[in-house]
Amino acid sequence: MRGKFISLEGGEGSGKTTAIQFIQQWLEQHSIPYIMTREPGGTPLAEEIRQLILSPREEKVNDVAELLLVFAARAQHLAEKIQPALDEGIWVISDRFLDSSYVYQGKARGGDVAVLDQLSRWVVGENKPDATLLLDVPVELGQERVVQRQHQDRLDKESLSFHQKVRDGFLERADVEPDRVKVIDASQSLESVKYQIEKQLVQLNNAWSGIS
Amino acid sequence: MRGKFISLEGGEGSGKTTAIQFIQQWLEQHSIPYIMTREPGGTPLAEEIRQLILSPREEKVNDVAELLLVFAARAQHLAEKIQPALDEGIWVISDRFLDSSYVYQGKARGGDVAVLDQLSRWVVGENKPDATLLLDVPVELGQERVVQRQHQDRLDKESLSFHQKVRDGFLERADVEPDRVKVIDASQSLESVKYQIEKQLVQLNNAWSGIS
Repeated sequence: MRGKFISLEGGEGSGKTTAIQFIQQWLEQHSIPYIMTREPGGTPLAEEIRQLILSPREEKVNDVAELLLVFAARAQHLAEKIQPALDEGIWVISDRFLDSSYVYQGKARGGDVAVLDQLSRWVVGENKPDATLLLDVPVELGQERVVQRQHQDRLDKESLSFHQKVRDGFLERADVEPDRVKVIDASQSLESVKYQIEKQLVQLNNAWSGIS
Repeated sequence: MRGKFISLEGGEGSGKTTAIQFIQQWLEQHSIPYIMTREPGGTPLAEEIRQLILSPREEKVNDVAELLLVFAARAQHLAEKIQPALDEGIWVISDRFLDSSYVYQGKARGGDVAVLDQLSRWVVGENKPDATLLLDVPVELGQERVVQRQHQDRLDKESLSFHQKVRDGFLERADVEPDRVKVIDASQSLESVKYQIEKQLVQLNNAWSGIS
């Protein structure tokens, strides 16, 4: 029985951290073995690549270089962490995955979608998540949540129009692959968000039990 | 007057360091402005990527991840160091460049040539070196030179059959692009090697003066 692979996506301040904590509680209540991971990162090498990408630096970072770094980390993450866990029947919950590349390096920074598609075929292939939960909030609400945080990295400092492109980019991903990418209205109350997420988890778990 | 771009290639122990010192002397004698650089590396970010690639680590490094790291460093190197120098009329001498990817990640590790060609088109495009000097020595001679060194990195520890693939891979590159990749017989005496290199430098410099 292969594990299920779930990715969480969303812009800054969309409430991914809270959603992940809820998913973790739900999996424990249902005695489902799981690992939590994140992108960029997830293995020691991939986390080192993450540091290269997210650290503020004086040197201008070339867009193609950033895109290739993100996919290098993803190749390592899939081969050394995600696939081995799924093979053992362990569920994998990843804070960000492939869709973030289409949104941040593609839509927001003008990266070529044909290049993204080719890298996706090479690196991810058929190993896309079984479900991607997209936490969607209006940009203004997301930003209100972000400024309440202490730590801000390079991406947090981008302009509002950038964040609007990010939101639009994620919603386009849901349009392109509606069976995989599930839009969660994260502007609703915490109880409503939890209910929307739980619905998806129950569906995945039933599909899983059905196969076994 | 655009600068000339020269890359040096060759397996371990082929005498690249000595060749580079000779090229440096020759450029200074002819009052040609130049920078020396290397791959992977060449900018602060690209050098950090180099460290990720070359550091020994317990984690198995996925082949696709390594390939994408190399090309990420190359994209940064070209955009932030090589192209700006050439635009200012400065010659760029790089210890390794594109051909090393075809040889180490392609020929020696079984990487897909179609993938390498696609990455080359995206990252390098028309910005290939004006000349690539391939220092060619039989594997046994190269290895004799290597064991006399103190420092050995991960690549130095590979098997003889690996080094044979590396040599074959470089010679194939010269077959594919004979106008760009010039084979220097580096098993000859130091004087002979210097003479072969100087011949190529003179040709490049004449071509350069001819355009100006």
